[in-house]
Amino acid sequence: MSPCPRIVALDVRDVRFPTSDHLDGSDAMNPEPDYSAAYVVLRTDAGDGLEGHALAFTTGRGNDVQANAIAALAPFVVGRPVAEVCGDLGGFARRLVHDPQLRWLGPEKGVIHMATGAVVNAAWDLAAKRAGKPVWRFLSDMSPAEIVAQVDFRWISDALTADEALGILSRARAGRDERIALLLDSGYPAYTTTPGWLGYSDEKLARLAREAVDDGFGHIKLKVGASLEDDVRRIRAVREAVGAGVRIAVDANQRWDVQPAIDWMRELAPYDPYWIEEPTSPDDILGHATVREALRPIKVATGEHVANRVVFKQLLQAGSIDIVQVDAARVGGINENIAILLLAAKFGVPVCPHAGGVGLCEMVQHLSMFDFVAVSATMQDRVIEYVDHLHEHFLDPVRVSRGRYAAPTAPGLSAQMHPASLAEYTYPGGPAWAGRT
Amino acid sequence: MSPCPRIVALDVRDVRFPTSDHLDGSDAMNPEPDYSAAYVVLRTDAGDGLEGHALAFTTGRGNDVQANAIAALAPFVVGRPVAEVCGDLGGFARRLVHDPQLRWLGPEKGVIHMATGAVVNAAWDLAAKRAGKPVWRFLSDMSPAEIVAQVDFRWISDALTADEALGILSRARAGRDERIALLLDSGYPAYTTTPGWLGYSDEKLARLAREAVDDGFGHIKLKVGASLEDDVRRIRAVREAVGAGVRIAVDANQRWDVQPAIDWMRELAPYDPYWIEEPTSPDDILGHATVREALRPIKVATGEHVANRVVFKQLLQAGSIDIVQVDAARVGGINENIAILLLAAKFGVPVCPHAGGVGLCEMVQHLSMFDFVAVSATMQDRVIEYVDHLHEHFLDPVRVSRGRYAAPTAPGLSAQMHPASLAEYTYPGGPAWAGRT
Repeated sequence: MSPCPRIVALDVRDVRFPTSDHLDGSDAMNPEPDYSAAYVVLRTDAGDGLEGHALAFTTGRGNDVQANAIAALAPFVVGRPVAEVCGDLGGFARRLVHDPQLRWLGPEKGVIHMATGAVVNAAWDLAAKRAGKPVWRFLSDMSPAEIVAQVDFRWISDALTADEALGILSRARAGRDERIALLLDSGYPAYTTTPGWLGYSDEKLARLAREAVDDGFGHIKLKVGASLEDDVRRIRAVREAVGAGVRIAVDANQRWDVQPAIDWMRELAPYDPYWIEEPTSPDDILGHATVREALRPIKVATGEHVANRVVFKQLLQAGSIDIVQVDAARVGGINENIAILLLAAKFGVPVCPHAGGVGLCEMVQHLSMFDFVAVSATMQDRVIEYVDHLHEHFLDPVRVSRGRYAAPTAPGLSAQMHPASLAEYTYPGGPAWAGRT
Repeated sequence: MSPCPRIVALDVRDVRFPTSDHLDGSDAMNPEPDYSAAYVVLRTDAGDGLEGHALAFTTGRGNDVQANAIAALAPFVVGRPVAEVCGDLGGFARRLVHDPQLRWLGPEKGVIHMATGAVVNAAWDLAAKRAGKPVWRFLSDMSPAEIVAQVDFRWISDALTADEALGILSRARAGRDERIALLLDSGYPAYTTTPGWLGYSDEKLARLAREAVDDGFGHIKLKVGASLEDDVRRIRAVREAVGAGVRIAVDANQRWDVQPAIDWMRELAPYDPYWIEEPTSPDDILGHATVREALRPIKVATGEHVANRVVFKQLLQAGSIDIVQVDAARVGGINENIAILLLAAKFGVPVCPHAGGVGLCEMVQHLSMFDFVAVSATMQDRVIEYVDHLHEHFLDPVRVSRGRYAAPTAPGLSAQMHPASLAEYTYPGGPAWAGRT
């Protein structure tokens, strides 16, 4: 055991799953995704066998670009004392985000920001493993002041100050132990996107929707946006299959301009869609506000492509959205997601995370559970997305049953994959890709 | 000569200039930039010796990430017929932007979008060289319908339709020949940032400001945002040096939150700053609107880090800015910049491009001159930024004298660098970097 253990390596791997073979995961903007992970491992010389694992998610082409960007962050990580990184994750994240040269590549958006997020999340995984706690619990056991120290308030102080954040977190101390016990006992509500991919037949869609409801889900999601006629037929089939009591969200994956979003959704309104997700560009704060105003009471949701806390801040300031869809692998890691959870709490808007892909369910469940214990202190109208893909590749996969996520108990962020899966799906050299590329 | 010439290679090079040796280019957020180019060359088998050259600009670290992203676009380019690419640059740009897998890395922002912009701009360089025209003239000689066909109206149709764009361009046909003659005769107005870098002493600042005015500039720019006390002293020294008739813009390079931007600028207001540039996050549409409202009549400008046309659209819709600062290498290339010029014309807001860096002056002059001839049809309150750095590395460098850019006459986008410069400054292997890395 080294007297002052250091991070000695940042390993990156391009891992891709040939999911485009089937139409699982197909939507109006992503017709043929190959779900992929730019996978990062932080190794130390502590001699305790603990590593930090996390990933940036992509849909195939470009996963090499994402992996390369993560590798470019190695000089900020390798050689640093483990205790320094894990003892001040807020400072660690800020150093990455504010590098005066790298920030030109964003700032705080796109490839370089997702790379930062992956490295920051790997550091959280390592820190939580060293503490022997799952990340949701590691976060929830911090004091309000410690949590505030994780957050970069630059550019959001007009909507949320550190003092306000401290107030939100301090008020949420009441009932904390009961909420932890409740989570451990009965988990957190989920909704499922499994039935609703665009590539499925109406018959398969209706059957899967019924099965989901029978399986305990009270909320399902349908992809829309490719053909209005098809969408009307599909949502009608699903509504008939599940009855009036089940929430049916629809997701356009950014397919529309502002007015077409309104017009299209009015055709689906008779079938009582619960929310419209990504009606238009994730950058269009004003556009979402117009869509929301026009479509009430249908809710508007977005977030999986929202680049950072500054855009979320404005979506909330402008009253653009009813649902904040945090993503574990889009923004600058857990630190920035804490800022987004606090903004959502300030504005009283529920957080319903985006998940699916590969590893996103595993990671994002920790954020919702932390939100429940220590930030919003409620599960009211909150659900975590669930998609039943690719969980078998993880050491600590999500456990979803009767429409609820069980609280993870293994230490870390749950993003660590089996070595055999990494070897099999490494691109382009892994056996899964033999003869394909 | 091949009967159907094709693009046979997309070459990328990581080129960096050690500009951090001096404090040229220093500002409040970029204290030590090494101006860099992720440089791209499209080669063909046409046998005519023509190549397409362009670049993405960065400030040093991460230029390898940017270059790698450009290289990842090769499969979209290599093997395509030259006539197909150069004959439908709008379609070419849309295919790159809308790739269903790569778009996950943005969408339309950051590293992948700048990579798209570099490749699209290289195609424009090639197309203009084949036509034997500088890009500004190549664009200006298109019909309104041909120009409209360059633009992707997705996500901006709520602010600008193709029909409205056609109307703007058609109205600008009147007086077109006179404006071309005027440009060729007396060029386009410039402003200079050369005096105002943060690393300069007050004495050097005042001396350079006076020299700039003596040299014919009626508009100069000063970097601010590191120290309020220093900024007050510096702008006072410059105002005293140049007198009341010269416009002094100030540039905070995103340093402030919303209220601090307002408070800080009120201290500088007595010295009559013409605009405040990048007061806060480039993503903060609502924040810029608040700053602008509070600081009238000081103008608010931004753009060099504005990710795409959707954010520019909203900055205009929300009345956030007085000045649109297009950048040649931030968005998805000339096609998206045409959309931004058209949006600015629709909202009646002047375009004053960001330039400097390496090659940005060379490229962006073409956009302003095209805007004058064919879009806004005016130079009123419009100036192109000028910085006297690194022009010696270009085959067709900008020619600025008496405060005006001369209209380029050589075919292409003016971004082609001397082979000797590319060799000298290639990172990390070039002689300029020997012993440094």
